[in-house]
Amino acid sequence: MTGLPYFPTDRRTLLRSSMLLGAGAALLPGAGFAQSDARAAIRAAAAANTAADIKRIQDWIALPTIAAENRNVPEGAAYMEELARAAGFTGVRQVPTDGVPGVVGFMDNGARQTLGIYFMYDVKQFDPAEWSSPPLEARIVDKPDWGKAIMGRGAVNQKGPEATFLAALHAMKAAGVTPPVNIALICEGEEEIGSPHFRQIAETPDVLAALKKCSGIFIPASWQGPTGAVNVNLGSKGVVELELVASGEKWGRGPKGDIHSSQKAAVDSPVWRLVHALNTLVTPDGNTVAIDGWFENVRPLTEREKELVRQAAAAGNEELTKASLGITHWIDDLSFEDAMIRLAGQPTVNIEGLVAGYTGPGGKTVLPGRGVAKLDLRLVPNQTRDEAVRKLRAHLDAQGFPDVEVNVSGGYDPTETAEDSALIRAELAAYAALGVEARLNPRLAGSWPGATFTAPPVSIPAGHFGLGHGSGAHAPDEYYVVESTNPKVAGITDATMGYVEIMYQLAALA
Amino acid sequence: MTGLPYFPTDRRTLLRSSMLLGAGAALLPGAGFAQSDARAAIRAAAAANTAADIKRIQDWIALPTIAAENRNVPEGAAYMEELARAAGFTGVRQVPTDGVPGVVGFMDNGARQTLGIYFMYDVKQFDPAEWSSPPLEARIVDKPDWGKAIMGRGAVNQKGPEATFLAALHAMKAAGVTPPVNIALICEGEEEIGSPHFRQIAETPDVLAALKKCSGIFIPASWQGPTGAVNVNLGSKGVVELELVASGEKWGRGPKGDIHSSQKAAVDSPVWRLVHALNTLVTPDGNTVAIDGWFENVRPLTEREKELVRQAAAAGNEELTKASLGITHWIDDLSFEDAMIRLAGQPTVNIEGLVAGYTGPGGKTVLPGRGVAKLDLRLVPNQTRDEAVRKLRAHLDAQGFPDVEVNVSGGYDPTETAEDSALIRAELAAYAALGVEARLNPRLAGSWPGATFTAPPVSIPAGHFGLGHGSGAHAPDEYYVVESTNPKVAGITDATMGYVEIMYQLAALA
Repeated sequence: MTGLPYFPTDRRTLLRSSMLLGAGAALLPGAGFAQSDARAAIRAAAAANTAADIKRIQDWIALPTIAAENRNVPEGAAYMEELARAAGFTGVRQVPTDGVPGVVGFMDNGARQTLGIYFMYDVKQFDPAEWSSPPLEARIVDKPDWGKAIMGRGAVNQKGPEATFLAALHAMKAAGVTPPVNIALICEGEEEIGSPHFRQIAETPDVLAALKKCSGIFIPASWQGPTGAVNVNLGSKGVVELELVASGEKWGRGPKGDIHSSQKAAVDSPVWRLVHALNTLVTPDGNTVAIDGWFENVRPLTEREKELVRQAAAAGNEELTKASLGITHWIDDLSFEDAMIRLAGQPTVNIEGLVAGYTGPGGKTVLPGRGVAKLDLRLVPNQTRDEAVRKLRAHLDAQGFPDVEVNVSGGYDPTETAEDSALIRAELAAYAALGVEARLNPRLAGSWPGATFTAPPVSIPAGHFGLGHGSGAHAPDEYYVVESTNPKVAGITDATMGYVEIMYQLAALA
Repeated sequence: MTGLPYFPTDRRTLLRSSMLLGAGAALLPGAGFAQSDARAAIRAAAAANTAADIKRIQDWIALPTIAAENRNVPEGAAYMEELARAAGFTGVRQVPTDGVPGVVGFMDNGARQTLGIYFMYDVKQFDPAEWSSPPLEARIVDKPDWGKAIMGRGAVNQKGPEATFLAALHAMKAAGVTPPVNIALICEGEEEIGSPHFRQIAETPDVLAALKKCSGIFIPASWQGPTGAVNVNLGSKGVVELELVASGEKWGRGPKGDIHSSQKAAVDSPVWRLVHALNTLVTPDGNTVAIDGWFENVRPLTEREKELVRQAAAAGNEELTKASLGITHWIDDLSFEDAMIRLAGQPTVNIEGLVAGYTGPGGKTVLPGRGVAKLDLRLVPNQTRDEAVRKLRAHLDAQGFPDVEVNVSGGYDPTETAEDSALIRAELAAYAALGVEARLNPRLAGSWPGATFTAPPVSIPAGHFGLGHGSGAHAPDEYYVVESTNPKVAGITDATMGYVEIMYQLAALA
């Protein structure tokens, strides 16, 4: 569901003008490090293993686990176990939940620092008819301006980057190099439906104990744009996904099923009720949440956060960003800077979809017994998911819609990770060592299950890390670049070395 | 689209308590008529031809013409021609339109009176998966309480009753009896999408001339309930079917396509715009049209009309009617009588369907570029379809929604037919002669293309006539009873004789 925190940032990054620090040095391991010989050996091993690393991604894409469709659930979990074992993890096992099982694995390298790695092994639904290449065949295609890419469901969200992290472990093993950190791997198969049971995995006693030892945890990600620049996110919005349902059944008025529309003159309409309930949730322009008490716990952006957004906006290209979104105006005709500040700071109520009555071509004269609005609520610190659901319910009750159902399917609290945490320092150091421009982003407008890590009882820094490029998450023709024609953008070997680099940088922290 | 004017009345009729006049005499041709010998011969011929009459319906059902899907259009028109020729019509031909062709035929029997007959040869869309019997196989099934019925798409709406009218002509021919009236047959294949080109057929010069000679025109219909009672409709509401579309494309704000939902904090939402535009169309309870000037030309029900509705309500069964609609309250908790008066008298804006963004199972984090509400507007005299569309457009413009599109797919003006017209008198006389209780209904809440007949340039009385029973129009498991186990309800032979009877009664009028 909310598995696409990446797209907005990705798009912004992708369109940002180049400010590469020493572009010529990009993607070469930083000089002057004690482990530079080890890095060279690992790079040689990674380069020699490219075919197998690509095949690993392709084979994984061929087995799509889709929780929403209950598709390949046991198969996907078993496959995730195999991937982890093959990469050298020990104690690999499934962790049962009330839903789709998690998978965990550990790697004790006798190191001082432990790195947490979060994987999702599920993917978003897809319709093969919309694709130019069969979404499970993971064919290698030419992407003009980028190079050769794997095209398939999950290519960038998130199997490509995740498998590239595994490639780093394979390369280190092949080079005879022990990773300089211990690793705790925690995988779930329900990210795309909002991680409804992820907390059960993280709070399994031995998993929790392992996570608490981590200096930080990240999900592998590939968000380089044409300049090679990346964002380092200091947090993300939370989200609640839900269906608002008005029905004759619950209302006690209107029909229970669809009846002939001519009855409208005598019979109440649950769909009109849905429209009127929706109408109370936001201001008439659709842009500001009007749910009672919604802003009570909203923490305004700090001056530092605003400054970081302003820097990003100044480095960005407003016209290209608008073009990529298919828009000509920001809300209220805001400036780019103010629109980006609003993007980072404002909670939202968005309508993902409306479904009521007859939805086929043309019309059909029915008075429907039921209407559904699919909503997502984006939350900012210090709102919580539970608070949001409670306030929405109370608002509907107070507005006279106690019968309108709020069926929550999933969601996450917002996350925050300190700028001076070990994880963020290691990320910045790794990018710097690789000559990749990195910009601090105070808050991702998208959402991810990071709150499971940043909130008690785990309470560790959490974020995203990785080189490389891909796009089309949740959309047709999703791809992940494996052979880059842009010297500023990592192909699979350079992306592999990115994961190696952050291990060394984390290990080197005081 | 609006091809189901029948359902509401049908349901009401079906549930009305018995007030049969001489139930024992039901369905026998009235005694004392000069043509009683002829009727007996025709009945004998009809009874002998039952198998062929049933097969005619079944074969027709096997060829569904569906204008919305452009399915079997030339085939359906050609088949309609064949049916008309086989029944004895001359000058049978297709009448081209800008859409689906009409079919016309004539029968000059040297009579004083001419009867108009309106057929629709198209049917509503269907999903075989929802049916208990394949919808094109037209199998004979047992309907408890009713008898043997043909189950298939179009069985009652409208092929069954129409083919039964043709059966009457076959029976008269077989009995060597010349029909006592001339007949003008006018058929269209777009009734289910709102008869967008029907006027082109009716105004073709020779067709118009033939229609203007008619004492009245009716569509064959089978609306008997368990008491055998039928309604005689003196008019019907008009209807406009349309899609209201809000889009980033037209608005110039918001995205042109679907984008990631996290962008909501910075980007306007066309779907929220749709919700807010919808919200202005009706009162907050969803029940009274709030479009500027909507009631300007609404003629309140006359005292006579209200009296007729009160009589119907008094004879009806409120609890069974509610149960059949799946409701427990009328609008505003009105009494049955007042709800029925509201049903006859009030114009409505109904939401047939909502379609926006992601409509599949679960959620998908998109901010959609487009939202659609499928609406039907029911109109009462003296509103017109053109006036309704104009006022809706003006209202949206005035409310600040000039970009929200109003895409009309079809519709009809309201109709009115005088209680003392030849058609209504003949219908009442025929029902009386057959011992069938008939009740005047001042206005059908449903809609049909009758305004093409009642308005200039045709200007003839128009309505519905027929015995027999069926149900499920526009729904799965549509059926038409051919062998009735209820002595008060006509099977196919008695229904055939109903059409014979009205010819004689019209011929006998002064």
